[in-house]
Amino acid sequence: MARVAVDAMGGDFAPRAPVAGALLALAELPAEHTIELVGRTDVIQGALDELLGGEFASYATQRARLHVVEALDVVTMSDKPTSVIRGKRESSMVVGLRRQAEGHADAFVSAGNTGAQMAASWFILKLHEGVTRPAIGTILPTTNEPLVMLDSGANVDCSAEELVQFARLGAVYAEDVLGRPEPTVGLLSIGEEPEKGNAVVIEAHQALRAESGFTFLGNVEGRDIPTGQCDRGPIDVVVCDGFVGNVVLKFYEALAPTLMGVFARALGAERETLAQAFKKLDYSEYGGAPLLGVKGVSIISHGKSTPRAIMNAIKVAVRMVDARMSDHVGRRLAEAAVPPAPTPAGASPV
Amino acid sequence: MARVAVDAMGGDFAPRAPVAGALLALAELPAEHTIELVGRTDVIQGALDELLGGEFASYATQRARLHVVEALDVVTMSDKPTSVIRGKRESSMVVGLRRQAEGHADAFVSAGNTGAQMAASWFILKLHEGVTRPAIGTILPTTNEPLVMLDSGANVDCSAEELVQFARLGAVYAEDVLGRPEPTVGLLSIGEEPEKGNAVVIEAHQALRAESGFTFLGNVEGRDIPTGQCDRGPIDVVVCDGFVGNVVLKFYEALAPTLMGVFARALGAERETLAQAFKKLDYSEYGGAPLLGVKGVSIISHGKSTPRAIMNAIKVAVRMVDARMSDHVGRRLAEAAVPPAPTPAGASPV
Repeated sequence: MARVAVDAMGGDFAPRAPVAGALLALAELPAEHTIELVGRTDVIQGALDELLGGEFASYATQRARLHVVEALDVVTMSDKPTSVIRGKRESSMVVGLRRQAEGHADAFVSAGNTGAQMAASWFILKLHEGVTRPAIGTILPTTNEPLVMLDSGANVDCSAEELVQFARLGAVYAEDVLGRPEPTVGLLSIGEEPEKGNAVVIEAHQALRAESGFTFLGNVEGRDIPTGQCDRGPIDVVVCDGFVGNVVLKFYEALAPTLMGVFARALGAERETLAQAFKKLDYSEYGGAPLLGVKGVSIISHGKSTPRAIMNAIKVAVRMVDARMSDHVGRRLAEAAVPPAPTPAGASPV
Repeated sequence: MARVAVDAMGGDFAPRAPVAGALLALAELPAEHTIELVGRTDVIQGALDELLGGEFASYATQRARLHVVEALDVVTMSDKPTSVIRGKRESSMVVGLRRQAEGHADAFVSAGNTGAQMAASWFILKLHEGVTRPAIGTILPTTNEPLVMLDSGANVDCSAEELVQFARLGAVYAEDVLGRPEPTVGLLSIGEEPEKGNAVVIEAHQALRAESGFTFLGNVEGRDIPTGQCDRGPIDVVVCDGFVGNVVLKFYEALAPTLMGVFARALGAERETLAQAFKKLDYSEYGGAPLLGVKGVSIISHGKSTPRAIMNAIKVAVRMVDARMSDHVGRRLAEAAVPPAPTPAGASPV
């Protein structure tokens, strides 16, 4: 049973997209799950009236599982992340996260200011022991199974230890949400050999070899991302710093619409047919990106999220809650903090 | 008039691909241009006999503009870059570059060991004053005009000053080879605002604002690469460190064949028709990547280069020689070393 708080005021198409996304999600989710729409009551009520009175009339039965939680203020895209926690305590973002901290909700979804959501989630939900910075885990579609890449933009300058933390977080996510019982992790670099990469990546490679809880595939390269496969098998998790991750993510996001245009012209094909072919590679099909490392669930959705993208983000949140993923992360990090049992060779001499 | 030395022993398909590529290039280039094939005479002669006696019989007239230069040794893919200069002095790579240093050739093209080519070019050709490390400039196809991205793999940990050097080198390349008389340069980052990016990128952004010789567009993002356009207009040069550049490059290279498979299945289209549609985005159409910053011309081709890719690399080399690009780089760097004339406000008080 999951109670998901949705930021009704966040994103380019708010309040319509989050409200419609909530209705779509409720129609697909089992009856035990509920949603709280957080924001200005009058604005949310107006959006609900319009949707249920028109295009979404058939969703009227979902209304009972939808609660409205008042938040008088709104975080804008120009708000400084760190000023939101103190300066906008009554914003939909802060109120929505506080609902979770106070035990009234299990997850939070927003398409608003990403930096503010990261800072507020960190401050309100707190980090798990063993995590120094939260990371954004993004699902990347591939021609085989989707993979999770992290960090995809929260941390620009990372230490080797932080890359190792990302690997641990990503492995649990792959297990609980992508359903990969024995997750594999690749370190994004510019050559397969352990000595290839920048200084931080070379150090992280050595540290990752000593990890348990997932199979470390060694270095993977940019060329392995479109197929989600390297020479050593399928890749469930790609680890990189947030600068590289964000460049790759934005490049990937832009390719689908760009290539669709190229093909439509070159092949004279219908845009609709092409859109169908691209669906598997369409990033919005995979909903939001969780902020991993916080105690709880905070899903970051793209500012341009459609109702369908919000619905998918809510479904990711429900899966994380149902799998008790946050507890799982806590246990995994505690295990990682315990040094491995000494090998016979390392035992004290008899 | 350009005399291009081609490494006949370098690349996965040597000697056939470089020898055939040389024949293709000569057939397309004006008669004043000549090519030297560098490598083991018997091997080169064998390849020539086979090609001219068969598939390439119609290219027999090109034979007169093709010279063979003996080099008894070969650089392998497992040779350490730094050991090649001393340990393999008679390799096709070292001999080919020496031909240029000694004034017998104007350019060098190889599909062999990239690291070795970089080290040998640096050592034998030397760097221009004002350059601390050479950078690989790769042409990326976009849905509009191609752009040059550098560094795409030579330098993994770069300083802000090095990113500025890359901008200067890339701008001259865009001007002389891509034919952009007023080149524009974008700094690859993860947000448009000057304060977005990692520490090195933020510092480089400030330094680039003071540059002349090109228009600095500010930060560009991964999403701007597929179209080669940002909000401020077309992008001729994308500057980044070699780690990010190599990840992006390998990702891009892998996409065309991957997506072709997806489309062929989804649309039931002929692979041939699709290949035609992808041609504009096919990286091999743009030949090799110059090592920028060295005094002379050294073109790095992909190890999997086909004869057509080698031909395109040779044509890039000829364009660089014809435009006297290396001299142009030298002049531009000398200008950049001179501090700008003091503004009235900065003049000494009267």
